[in-house]
Amino acid sequence: MTVYLVGAGPGHPGLFTLRGAELLRQCDVVVHDRLIGHELLNMAPAHAELVDVGKARGSAPVSQDQINAILVARGQAGLCVVRLKGGDPFVFARGGEEALALTAAGVPFECVPGVSSALAAPAAAGIPLTLRSEVLSFTVVSGHHAAATPESANWEAIAATRGTIVILMGSTGIGEIAARLRCGGLAANTPVAAVRWATTERQEVTRATLATIGQADVQAPSTIIVGSLAAVDFSTSNNSILATENEGKSGEMPALCRNGKWL
Amino acid sequence: MTVYLVGAGPGHPGLFTLRGAELLRQCDVVVHDRLIGHELLNMAPAHAELVDVGKARGSAPVSQDQINAILVARGQAGLCVVRLKGGDPFVFARGGEEALALTAAGVPFECVPGVSSALAAPAAAGIPLTLRSEVLSFTVVSGHHAAATPESANWEAIAATRGTIVILMGSTGIGEIAARLRCGGLAANTPVAAVRWATTERQEVTRATLATIGQADVQAPSTIIVGSLAAVDFSTSNNSILATENEGKSGEMPALCRNGKWL
Repeated sequence: MTVYLVGAGPGHPGLFTLRGAELLRQCDVVVHDRLIGHELLNMAPAHAELVDVGKARGSAPVSQDQINAILVARGQAGLCVVRLKGGDPFVFARGGEEALALTAAGVPFECVPGVSSALAAPAAAGIPLTLRSEVLSFTVVSGHHAAATPESANWEAIAATRGTIVILMGSTGIGEIAARLRCGGLAANTPVAAVRWATTERQEVTRATLATIGQADVQAPSTIIVGSLAAVDFSTSNNSILATENEGKSGEMPALCRNGKWL
Repeated sequence: MTVYLVGAGPGHPGLFTLRGAELLRQCDVVVHDRLIGHELLNMAPAHAELVDVGKARGSAPVSQDQINAILVARGQAGLCVVRLKGGDPFVFARGGEEALALTAAGVPFECVPGVSSALAAPAAAGIPLTLRSEVLSFTVVSGHHAAATPESANWEAIAATRGTIVILMGSTGIGEIAARLRCGGLAANTPVAAVRWATTERQEVTRATLATIGQADVQAPSTIIVGSLAAVDFSTSNNSILATENEGKSGEMPALCRNGKWL
């Protein structure tokens, strides 16, 4: 049988894919992350084994090597295995490592991409990532290592692209990240938006600037967007998407706002 | 009624979302791009009006203003309208502009993100975009304006991020883009992969380097991946994902290869 590396999407069950749902409904085993919602897990057949390999607070996390071993063993046992990962399996999610482990063990696998929070969270907050003739690129980056270590992203170079910046896993280090982006040439009043629990009923959007985001209450799981377009909310009619001036005031935290248009 | 801005995904009908399918099956009007497949269009009810606003070769394209006007008029007429866009509606697809036009006209809308080719095409070719502790970011960029004009992306700065680069709409200008990335410091033997018709039965993957991609036959619609990970194919067992040496030889074009593991 086959191991399916499946993206669960950003949170809203409607953003799961048709192929993902088809596989989940017929599988024998679901190996899932911690943040996968019950709406999706309930799609699995009653006989299916559910293996939670997410990192639960206070208990020892399951290592990537252990996860790989679980996938290989279940696959070699002839079971239909769905490896269900939040967002997209290949955006900071080690789907590539799992695919390599399966290839090395001779276990057939199939990749089913998903809607990534990196794209869906900005959309859910009314923020476009690019703008014709104005913002021609966006960079998606892990904020897990904020400090300037060999393991950290090149924040100064990312700032210099002048494209939108989408930070995943950056809630804890956002203050330090903001400082490095300013070192890279971004102005203190560059807009920042943090979208927590994107696409779910709990969604919260915090608007700030590079100068103020370090004092904001940004908690995981959040997708953080930096750049001129982070001030946009295309669901509000008093929005000038082409405005180059930042309307936010440095040092003043806008209230939480919520995009009422969301699913 | 409501206008739904819906991402159709990268091509494979199984990569459409559950919410997108639910809306498409009950709508009155589908306003769609040229590359949307028949499998998806056939989901619409028999009574639904299909409006093709894609740019067909040889005929005058429908302008963005005209598309906005179509969406506003159909929405104001009380119809259930699905605006079906390839990939994700907000990745170089002007979904934000359409949302703003609907907001300005007072027409309710809902955003339904989709799986972007920027993420799915690399996965379909066995290429991870990031690698733990090694490649910590990726930049998605429009290659529509390759030359150094005010409208072009900052290719040199993007090269300096040292992350993976994903180029959409870059088939025509890839030679010029490769030259600018080399100006930005990327080595001539930096791996490049071009994935055409990603996730469909017609998928083709061309592997090259920055030195050779300009001579390769890269045709639209292709997603082009640049960086050390572009040499990876995680479905082949002789792959060393951690190899830092580029195995490709400059000046030598590898044959087309196809990831047999794909859906």
